[in-house]
Amino acid sequence: MKIAILGGTGPEGSGLGLRWAASGHEVIIGSRLAEKGITVANELKALLPEGHISGTDNLTASQEAELIVLAVPYGAQESTMAHVREAVIGKLLVTVVAPTQKPKARVWRLPSGLSAAEELQIQLGPEARIVAAFQNIGAHQLMDLDFDLDCDVLICGNSKQDKEIAAELCTDAGLNGVNAGSLQNSSVLEGLTSVLIGINIRNKVKSAGIRITGI
Amino acid sequence: MKIAILGGTGPEGSGLGLRWAASGHEVIIGSRLAEKGITVANELKALLPEGHISGTDNLTASQEAELIVLAVPYGAQESTMAHVREAVIGKLLVTVVAPTQKPKARVWRLPSGLSAAEELQIQLGPEARIVAAFQNIGAHQLMDLDFDLDCDVLICGNSKQDKEIAAELCTDAGLNGVNAGSLQNSSVLEGLTSVLIGINIRNKVKSAGIRITGI
Repeated sequence: MKIAILGGTGPEGSGLGLRWAASGHEVIIGSRLAEKGITVANELKALLPEGHISGTDNLTASQEAELIVLAVPYGAQESTMAHVREAVIGKLLVTVVAPTQKPKARVWRLPSGLSAAEELQIQLGPEARIVAAFQNIGAHQLMDLDFDLDCDVLICGNSKQDKEIAAELCTDAGLNGVNAGSLQNSSVLEGLTSVLIGINIRNKVKSAGIRITGI
Repeated sequence: MKIAILGGTGPEGSGLGLRWAASGHEVIIGSRLAEKGITVANELKALLPEGHISGTDNLTASQEAELIVLAVPYGAQESTMAHVREAVIGKLLVTVVAPTQKPKARVWRLPSGLSAAEELQIQLGPEARIVAAFQNIGAHQLMDLDFDLDCDVLICGNSKQDKEIAAELCTDAGLNGVNAGSLQNSSVLEGLTSVLIGINIRNKVKSAGIRITGI
């Protein structure tokens, strides 16, 4: 599959991109500036010479891809999507965005009272295909392709089929996806990001995650 | 410790009560009606004849105990606490309440925009010692004292000392407690309850839980 990662220059976007390229997907690293996308794509290609990885600006990446992953900081979500919106129509959009606030890693309620993923749905309209996933994985171990990530990925969305595609993307990244219900439930995924950052700090680790037990 | 469990006649309250009694605590099962509390206490004593377990009404239970566990349905939280409030002053209150809505196991935002635990803090005032915990454990296996519960307990609260007491209660119930930050983060614990109910339904299991990995 041809996957565009908007904001793919950050640690989570580039780590997922590397893993997807390693499993045979064609990955396009999108950035606000095409040059930055190209630079990071070249860095990833150095790690995985056989991978199909290219870089460009977010709009071109969205136009070229079949599936879009949104990996920008929350503060850039609305403007990025306003910029690429036409190119996303009909395509599955997987958002990894989790709003966090410094300096305290506390669960933070958006002024809208909604999750970032629900805000995205409102911005793009009810027809937009949106799935929230990958909010609760530690980014820094994604780059190590041999590292066995000890965590599950909760997946929220309103379409079962789209959640199954996202679950395949989890598998392709060496992770296990778990259907966590409708997009409304994404507030839990986003809040867990802050909870896990706090657990990292208190336990002096870098990649606390969660596993669903009993299934 | 002398522990009152308000709403202790339900499956989670009575299951935790049984486990705490088995580890040596004195447990008082509170109910709206004293007779109901006594009946359930007698049922638990039949399972654990050596346990110190008694039953009474919620107010008497609160007056007699050193630590209060709130295990009523969300709809009864405010009225129960209004009734017992004087008896709780200065004592640690551990709330296991998670608001859920039937028939859909979806994350449900309270009209206040807050978590049930935060509403409790507002009702009782800033001096009240409140910790949220045990929102994410399957109730029906608590009664089997030999059953090794495969899940962690996330603990939220604004006092580190009070969270440590709650962590000891986890240990005494055969569970592992993990500090999950301030009381503000309790919205994640409460939302996870709905997510886990949905995971139970989709996977035809009864006690999906979570483990924190990487710590």
